[in-house]
Amino acid sequence: MSTKEVTQIAAATTLTPQELLKHWQGHRGLTRKMIEAFPDDKLFTWSIGGMRPFSDLVYEFLGMAVPGLQGIATGKWQKWAHADKVTTKQELLALWDEATDGINNIWPTIPPHRFQEQDVAFGQWPGTGISFIFYFIDNEIHHRGQAYVYLRSLGIEPPAFWDRP
Amino acid sequence: MSTKEVTQIAAATTLTPQELLKHWQGHRGLTRKMIEAFPDDKLFTWSIGGMRPFSDLVYEFLGMAVPGLQGIATGKWQKWAHADKVTTKQELLALWDEATDGINNIWPTIPPHRFQEQDVAFGQWPGTGISFIFYFIDNEIHHRGQAYVYLRSLGIEPPAFWDRP
Repeated sequence: MSTKEVTQIAAATTLTPQELLKHWQGHRGLTRKMIEAFPDDKLFTWSIGGMRPFSDLVYEFLGMAVPGLQGIATGKWQKWAHADKVTTKQELLALWDEATDGINNIWPTIPPHRFQEQDVAFGQWPGTGISFIFYFIDNEIHHRGQAYVYLRSLGIEPPAFWDRP
Repeated sequence: MSTKEVTQIAAATTLTPQELLKHWQGHRGLTRKMIEAFPDDKLFTWSIGGMRPFSDLVYEFLGMAVPGLQGIATGKWQKWAHADKVTTKQELLALWDEATDGINNIWPTIPPHRFQEQDVAFGQWPGTGISFIFYFIDNEIHHRGQAYVYLRSLGIEPPAFWDRP
């Protein structure tokens, strides 16, 4: 392999897998702070314009994160589903922390070629491994932005967007 | 360079610069659809919980995108500021399209090492080039999610989150 070819490969690196994991877990840490910031009842009930309460959005995030990463790591996809419902904030936070560990455990098992490999997520959505991961992250940022409005409409100051663990 | 070393470099590649540009412009295309979906007056006035109207958030996105990318490409940063204000949706869309071209033009001039190089964005915020770009993208997703609630509260169906040009 020529120096030029090696340079081209190195130049193509914008983000390492380890940095991407840190980026995602930073966002997930902020989402956790958002769950904590909600009053216990409003977490499961508060809505604007007919949109889903924040708990429902969190079930969606949880349904994608660990099951999606398992699919990316192994090529074996389960059927897409939201996480099982719970009834208290503490139970939701426990599910969140379980997924945090799950992501950290699965991440190093992802074969490097899987980031760029084409697959069909949950047997339904075609794309590359990296496109699925960005969908999980972006979808969480998007719906969490919605939850910021819910908190503000309740007169509650949300955690700062830029302050991620 | 050994095969093992080359494999390690290639393994560190989750996303190429070209894919990252496409990812960002896809999100920006969705944000453009959101601007179009707002009624002309509500774009500049509608608010929930004391939050800024969507036009103000768009000025923030515009103030980061081209000026930020210029800083990443050249290492020369201007003072951070929102984009200049306009008074009509058409003018805002024109600013948006100008930034779209600006991003496309600056992107290929970014020296590859700048993605991973430490710098201080706008002379204020330390980080790597790639961390700045993700801040621009994530901040846009975050505030656009807020605008989805604005539209729903106005009884307007927003464009689908997953449908990006």
